[in-house]
Amino acid sequence: MTTEQLVKQIKSKKSFLCVGLDADLTKIPQHLLNAEDPVFEFNKAIVDATHHVAVSYKPNIAFFEAYGIEGWKSLKKTIDYINEKYPEIFTIADAKRGDIGNTSKMYAKAFFEDLDFDSITVAPYMGKDSVEPFLGFEEKHTILLALTSNEGAFDFQTKTVDGKELYKQVLEISKTWVNSQNLMYVVGATKAEYLADIRSIVPDSFLLVPGVGAQGGSLLEVCKYGMTGNVGLLVNSSRGIIYASNESDFAEAAKAEAERLQKQMQDIMIDAGI
Amino acid sequence: MTTEQLVKQIKSKKSFLCVGLDADLTKIPQHLLNAEDPVFEFNKAIVDATHHVAVSYKPNIAFFEAYGIEGWKSLKKTIDYINEKYPEIFTIADAKRGDIGNTSKMYAKAFFEDLDFDSITVAPYMGKDSVEPFLGFEEKHTILLALTSNEGAFDFQTKTVDGKELYKQVLEISKTWVNSQNLMYVVGATKAEYLADIRSIVPDSFLLVPGVGAQGGSLLEVCKYGMTGNVGLLVNSSRGIIYASNESDFAEAAKAEAERLQKQMQDIMIDAGI
Repeated sequence: MTTEQLVKQIKSKKSFLCVGLDADLTKIPQHLLNAEDPVFEFNKAIVDATHHVAVSYKPNIAFFEAYGIEGWKSLKKTIDYINEKYPEIFTIADAKRGDIGNTSKMYAKAFFEDLDFDSITVAPYMGKDSVEPFLGFEEKHTILLALTSNEGAFDFQTKTVDGKELYKQVLEISKTWVNSQNLMYVVGATKAEYLADIRSIVPDSFLLVPGVGAQGGSLLEVCKYGMTGNVGLLVNSSRGIIYASNESDFAEAAKAEAERLQKQMQDIMIDAGI
Repeated sequence: MTTEQLVKQIKSKKSFLCVGLDADLTKIPQHLLNAEDPVFEFNKAIVDATHHVAVSYKPNIAFFEAYGIEGWKSLKKTIDYINEKYPEIFTIADAKRGDIGNTSKMYAKAFFEDLDFDSITVAPYMGKDSVEPFLGFEEKHTILLALTSNEGAFDFQTKTVDGKELYKQVLEISKTWVNSQNLMYVVGATKAEYLADIRSIVPDSFLLVPGVGAQGGSLLEVCKYGMTGNVGLLVNSSRGIIYASNESDFAEAAKAEAERLQKQMQDIMIDAGI
């Protein structure tokens, strides 16, 4: 998917909501455990209930790998279902991969070719040649970790490197890489005030913003500092939507919560004249 | 596996060789492609041919995920085969994972419980709470990326952070984390001269050293700067061993190359009085 197609969808749905698919067998409604593939059935129900207000789905790969071969089957069924039924929706493999060149190339093949995701999250620690193999795919996007939403972000990411915080170095240096136009960045919502600085380095790039809701970030703050003329944001909510209820009404509850967030986003977009 | 058991195996085999299992269908002997599971058949042959001189196997997870569900099945069969037939051998999931706490916990479950690896490689960028979920498993080891063997290592890892290179900050800060006794570190062989500095920070920790062979590192240099009284090193060779031949004699060629490296290691251990 091109960035233009993503922007078009955002403007048409008046939404920049990404729904994180982190299905945990201990947390999903227990009646689903009788299904042949509970994780897929859960994801399918969430997707069907929220696709009209979500522009992106973000399966969290750990939550599939934890169930081994069965989990990988659920992942394949989930991404195939989204790609077939809702092809306009931007898909993110939240995988946080990154390795030496020939290995990153295999991860790119796994997520861009075999599973046909539109994008993947990638860790920057190993530098240029660990990220460029992902960037070479046309109409695919690499979402590089810049400033994450967890407490451990302060261990290294915000430390000063050559006069500038590490996450800013990641932003600046990554702009020099081949096919950097295919880069997006992860920026946690719990640090919305950092977004103004980030926008001074990457004024137009899309930012994937986790941490609204369960992790305490504010949507208004994120938009105040991070929104561009094309919105330029994908705001993710995982647990707040998918576990809005853990009873048989979970899909309806997810729908209501997704619609509530979309309404806030719509108001913000209207206020911003987008 | 405990560190003591690993050291015992190293001393008994007079070897600290780790064999990387990066089976690529375009590179393995083409007669294997007729097998039901070519990746597993290749790995099994390599393991059977080298187990007497290898103390560790390191399946590179990307090379399995690139083949989707079939790849995950090959991974499961490969690790089960090693664990059943050669339980004394230390297994490493070269996965380079790392995410927020509840997600890292799922990755730990995937690799330590479902697949029963002895260890996993983990990226440090997201800090303490992204690594500690791995450290909580008894008799399991977390191999944190410190200084990798690729060119991109110089993009961020060797940059100065608060007066000290980032990879040294990673070493120092990680020592303060809960269950840090379960940490090992990845240190690339292409930068052997850095090992003296690294040993001043982590004098006793095991180091996983990739980059000997195909990537140009020298075994002697690595040992000169990095070896401890318990060896403290796992030196990995992947392509140099597994692709020593791509004809029907590939297993014999892998055996010969693994034995050649073990002989060098034995000489070094004898010289060091271990």
